[in-house]
Amino acid sequence: MTGKFISFEGPDGAGKTSVLHAILDRLTPMLGEQLVITREPGGRDNQVAEAIRDLVLSPAYPAMDPWTEAMLYAAARRQHVVETIRPALADDKVIISDRYLDSSIAYQGGGRELGAERVADLNQYATNGLQPQATIYLDLAPEVGLARIQATRQDEINRLDVEALAFHQRVSAAYHDLIAADPDRFWVIDASQPLEQVVADAWDAMQHILTLPTEA
Amino acid sequence: MTGKFISFEGPDGAGKTSVLHAILDRLTPMLGEQLVITREPGGRDNQVAEAIRDLVLSPAYPAMDPWTEAMLYAAARRQHVVETIRPALADDKVIISDRYLDSSIAYQGGGRELGAERVADLNQYATNGLQPQATIYLDLAPEVGLARIQATRQDEINRLDVEALAFHQRVSAAYHDLIAADPDRFWVIDASQPLEQVVADAWDAMQHILTLPTEA
Ligand SMILES: Nc1ncnc2c1ncn2[C@@H]1O[C@H](COP(=O)(O)OP(=O)(O)OP(=O)(O)O)[C@@H](O)[C@H]1O
Ligand SMILES: Nc1ncnc2c1ncn2[C@@H]1O[C@H](COP(=O)(O)OP(=O)(O)OP(=O)(O)O)[C@@H](O)[C@H]1O
Ligand SMILES: [Mg+2]
Ligand SMILES: [Mg+2]
Repeated sequence: MTGKFISFEGPDGAGKTSVLHAILDRLTPMLGEQLVITREPGGRDNQVAEAIRDLVLSPAYPAMDPWTEAMLYAAARRQHVVETIRPALADDKVIISDRYLDSSIAYQGGGRELGAERVADLNQYATNGLQPQATIYLDLAPEVGLARIQATRQDEINRLDVEALAFHQRVSAAYHDLIAADPDRFWVIDASQPLEQVVADAWDAMQHILTLPTEA
Repeated sequence: MTGKFISFEGPDGAGKTSVLHAILDRLTPMLGEQLVITREPGGRDNQVAEAIRDLVLSPAYPAMDPWTEAMLYAAARRQHVVETIRPALADDKVIISDRYLDSSIAYQGGGRELGAERVADLNQYATNGLQPQATIYLDLAPEVGLARIQATRQDEINRLDVEALAFHQRVSAAYHDLIAADPDRFWVIDASQPLEQVVADAWDAMQHILTLPTEA
């Protein structure tokens, strides 16, 4: 593996997708073809993972059991790792993913109360231990993120967005446990600032991350 | 749990679906509403599990990783256990499933070479240890089962059917390891006999099984 794998994490509405989009405009001229942007659940050009994404995010299945959901996320992640992330790393790419493993631990482990350890254990079958070299965490009180979403995209609400605030508070707490357990991997950014400032902070972090030595 | 949970297992083309259909004609007058017939992957009236079935059996995804496949089967099984099997058992039903956990251990563990132990471990998250009280195993050399399928339904070949014979030999070997490890649960029937005789043997087994004491 000679490339770099970086994830964006944070609660719903923290600005992951917006910030990634803004950063992309600056990274593309620098990295060109070396840059690969992807996302979870799903993954760029990954048919299997995107089909699982459609299923797990569909509002058509309100009776989906939390472990069913956790296993679908893990299945999508497996395909993402095998077909997209590992080949990109082997090919010296800089691969940036909008969500990865931490999201499952926070949402299914914390939010759905399946337990962080058990969800991490399940995901060993998906990741074989592959972690990002760095994770940019957009830190925001869950109620602020939810308010942003409600204000701007009532048309594309999915099953997770309609969960109660208590769910999102458990998600946030689980994220903070992950950060406390692995502080060197996380770059925590105050996502309550105006988007421009969040982008500036994320861009700073990204420049540091890109100069980190690549793992063997 | 006051009901009974019985599974049918065996290699492709052994006659599980045919025998179950024939037995149904005799069980329905006996059991009436108490009888619930279901199947894996998927499950009777189980929208989530049937949607996962469609995905995992679709020939549209030849690049599906074996662990992705194993996790999709486990996800479908979880939903089947939670939404279909456990409620039926609690409601004193006799629930008969065309395939269950043993199929994953044989096909993904053996056939795909993921390892029986690892697939069983993954499936703990799906079953929480729920096993059938009895499993009717239709024993047949894999090449005979494959020949039956090729002769009769070339139009509905799915992704698993096109695997090489070596795959099916590993499936068969893994099934036989399961039988050796838990001989009291399995009722092994010679499925190379004419269908009528296989049905007669399965019917005998079923009558014994129905008189077994119900687990607490
Ligand atoms: N710093 C910010 N200040 C105010 N609004 C913001 C900020 N960042 C993003 N937004 C707005 O909040 C909404 C959610 O942003 P975005 O979709 O980027 O979040 P996300 O973290 O990707 O959410 P999700 O987890 O749901 O995908 C968008 O309408 C976006 O314009
Ligand atoms: N004992 C038998 N002798 C000859 N042909 C049989 C016998 N049992 C079933 N068949 C035929 O073999 C084919 C496969 O049978 P069936 O679909 O019941 O098998 P199955 O075990 O359910 O297979 P699969 O695992 O693929 O679902 C059918 O065409 C069926 O008519
Ligand atoms: Mg987003
Ligand atoms: Mg069948």
